[in-house]
Amino acid sequence: MAGTWTVDDHLADVLRSVRPLEPIELHLLDAQGCVLVEDVLASVSLPPFDNSSMDGYAVRADDVAKASEDEPVVLEVVGDVAAGSGTVPDVGPGRAARVMTGAPLPPGADAVVPVEWTDGGTGGGPVDTMAAHSADPSGAGGEVRVHRPVEARQYVRDKGGDLRAGAVALEAGTILGPAQIGLLAAVGRATVRVRPRPRVVVLSTGSELVRPGLPLGPGRIHDSNSYVLTAAARAAGAIAYRVDAVADDATTLRTVIEDQLVRADAIVTSGGVSVGAYDVVKEALTDLAGTALGGGLPEESDDRDRGRDGDGDGHEDGPDREKGRRKPPPPTRSVEFRRLAMQPGKPQGFGLVGPDAVPLFALPGNPVSSYVSFELFVRPALRALMGLDPADRRTVRARVEPDDSAPLTSPEGKRQFLRGRYEPPADGEEIGTVRPVGGPGSHLLGSLARADALIVVPERTTEIARGDELEAVLLD
Amino acid sequence: MAGTWTVDDHLADVLRSVRPLEPIELHLLDAQGCVLVEDVLASVSLPPFDNSSMDGYAVRADDVAKASEDEPVVLEVVGDVAAGSGTVPDVGPGRAARVMTGAPLPPGADAVVPVEWTDGGTGGGPVDTMAAHSADPSGAGGEVRVHRPVEARQYVRDKGGDLRAGAVALEAGTILGPAQIGLLAAVGRATVRVRPRPRVVVLSTGSELVRPGLPLGPGRIHDSNSYVLTAAARAAGAIAYRVDAVADDATTLRTVIEDQLVRADAIVTSGGVSVGAYDVVKEALTDLAGTALGGGLPEESDDRDRGRDGDGDGHEDGPDREKGRRKPPPPTRSVEFRRLAMQPGKPQGFGLVGPDAVPLFALPGNPVSSYVSFELFVRPALRALMGLDPADRRTVRARVEPDDSAPLTSPEGKRQFLRGRYEPPADGEEIGTVRPVGGPGSHLLGSLARADALIVVPERTTEIARGDELEAVLLD
Repeated sequence: MAGTWTVDDHLADVLRSVRPLEPIELHLLDAQGCVLVEDVLASVSLPPFDNSSMDGYAVRADDVAKASEDEPVVLEVVGDVAAGSGTVPDVGPGRAARVMTGAPLPPGADAVVPVEWTDGGTGGGPVDTMAAHSADPSGAGGEVRVHRPVEARQYVRDKGGDLRAGAVALEAGTILGPAQIGLLAAVGRATVRVRPRPRVVVLSTGSELVRPGLPLGPGRIHDSNSYVLTAAARAAGAIAYRVDAVADDATTLRTVIEDQLVRADAIVTSGGVSVGAYDVVKEALTDLAGTALGGGLPEESDDRDRGRDGDGDGHEDGPDREKGRRKPPPPTRSVEFRRLAMQPGKPQGFGLVGPDAVPLFALPGNPVSSYVSFELFVRPALRALMGLDPADRRTVRARVEPDDSAPLTSPEGKRQFLRGRYEPPADGEEIGTVRPVGGPGSHLLGSLARADALIVVPERTTEIARGDELEAVLLD
Repeated sequence: MAGTWTVDDHLADVLRSVRPLEPIELHLLDAQGCVLVEDVLASVSLPPFDNSSMDGYAVRADDVAKASEDEPVVLEVVGDVAAGSGTVPDVGPGRAARVMTGAPLPPGADAVVPVEWTDGGTGGGPVDTMAAHSADPSGAGGEVRVHRPVEARQYVRDKGGDLRAGAVALEAGTILGPAQIGLLAAVGRATVRVRPRPRVVVLSTGSELVRPGLPLGPGRIHDSNSYVLTAAARAAGAIAYRVDAVADDATTLRTVIEDQLVRADAIVTSGGVSVGAYDVVKEALTDLAGTALGGGLPEESDDRDRGRDGDGDGHEDGPDREKGRRKPPPPTRSVEFRRLAMQPGKPQGFGLVGPDAVPLFALPGNPVSSYVSFELFVRPALRALMGLDPADRRTVRARVEPDDSAPLTSPEGKRQFLRGRYEPPADGEEIGTVRPVGGPGSHLLGSLARADALIVVPERTTEIARGDELEAVLLD
């Protein structure tokens, strides 16, 4: 075990070791939340053709220049232009075509008169709607009275006015939300090249753990960490697989991790990392040289590409996992167990395991410790795997309002993370307040479940009085 | 078509018509993000038994009251208490048991000495870790020197100290995030009763629409709305099903919607709601009396319970869909098509369809209009279906910074939603800035994809100058 690390140094070390996942081609809707790795060029213009922005009549602007309520211009209606209609009538002088929003501007016309500025072909006064074609096909013929003039190009959307064919629709690095996915669809893309969501295997360790729903024997507790961490991994954007708790046996644990590697872009364990005589995670992972979990493959091996592609079941694999393309060999480093200058979460293990150098986070087993560790180290790493900014939690300054007047204490030299409930600033206030919930005990899951923020007590602070300003990390 | 509605009145009308979905029992990890509908009582105490908060030695505090570096107290080690170990040795006077974090406090002991305050059984000075039991089983016997005293109950976590058996672990109404799911697991719950995520069927209408990936013919465009709306529904927490675009034919559309009802808690269409002659959504849904989509079932019918339970495929249905329990008859109301005093998004249809009164949102077809309509009306409704607060988007005051110095205009009497990019307040500033991107045209998907905020221009505002303060809705 090395010396004591600061929170910042440990995080920096984790992030230095984690590289974004290799991109894959995904169907549009499967790429939501992912980062684009290519500049996407528009293969068509948006709009692809001049089209009407109104339901109305396509006309020649010159023909209706003198139209007014009192002296409407009468045009002959030569047909309908519905969106998607195959044939488009020619609009000669003195003529009009009924045109729908989004439908192509027919040849000869240079403007659109909204239906509300016409009699809609009824022969009466202004109307505010067209009769449905299915109910009254005669609307596509006859005459229309136009009550107001339009300018040339009025109510016409120009071809390419939103985006020209060949231009960059979205740049590499864009995060794909609903609007970006819509733009990709609009330029005709069915699939897109992105960094995939990481597949995270979560497992608790401990012979005392019983699956929820089963009765507890003496000295037993229900496994909760694997549920917290699986949910937290999903909240961070990962595809998470929860594995049932593993008993405190180093050989078993190593076998389970080896088995899970085929579907893992990251592995998160909890428990077994401290100074006890049964801390098997530390025992199982401290020296991996010569084991299947050890790194250090020969540099020429093609096995390097096996990880994400070769799990055999095709699950979560996209159509194109870069088979056969030689990647630079991953950095290899063993799993190191450290003491961190933080509370909770002092003991932490981190390293890269297996031939593909999969990041493994060995988190402490106390429920609050493992959750706080996930937030501080695993969540940023999962985001880095996706190519996202590792830091995404909103942090705010807030005034601490303890429930009683006794000052809170914090150990010198350690960064403490208290659980709190945050209240945004009241009207006229600049900063909000945060109220600690529960004590500092790292087993207090009940209080954690009432918290929506982590209060950050800096290393040098040993006492917090009512009204002190601290930073709070806002949780979902 | 009724008269003009304000944005607020339309939203209020939608929310009045939408009732939270009936609760179902879901596995813990499937309930993430859902609202609990029951008070969950702890069936076990947390912790379930007195246990150690440290790796160390369980002792009688009186035995080590005079321990010091110079004069350590020597105790006989009677065995190990690992977490989950079956047998627990008695700790008599002058004795100690090696105990691990989380393991039960053995009978006779009343405190724990951390291993760092002992020689770890080595016979030497203070140690900072235990030897692994697997490597050195002798550590469970022999003697240990204790260098510091402990108080009674020190480093002992009291049974029930976090939560007592029988107490409320989580109250009805709690939203289940990682910590709450963890607490439910800890008290032994494998499943939990929540309001499920709504299943939303999304379909675009329009004969001009071509699926992305296929070539465009003349006058055709790629379907993008169904992609935007499916992604937006997922971002809102729904389970969304995208249906391929339906051509402009009222009978076909009605059939597709009827078919989709079995898997729909809400239906979202786009297009076909304006004043054109081919606006088939309006045509298909305006009068549903006597059709399968009409409401108004006889009040005694058992068919009311069919919707979510009876789709026959079991998909998305939990183990307990309240079969056979009589629910109050749903309100029935036809689909109404309205003009809203907003831009974009003027034409909107909303109603309840089918025997289960499924909310149907008929959104306008312009890409920006349909997206903005979703944000304003559908997202709040989907949240209401889940039992969540309908309003969840963060809104901020921001200074408008147009790219050029010409003032922006907005139609009087309409609430306008401009697309913008938001910059949070700089240091020392109280509010951030928002820069409009693209023009007001509701077809400008390219600009929408560069926006991260909607700028809200109130109904009475007709001009916006640089530096004016407006509200901005922050999007994901």
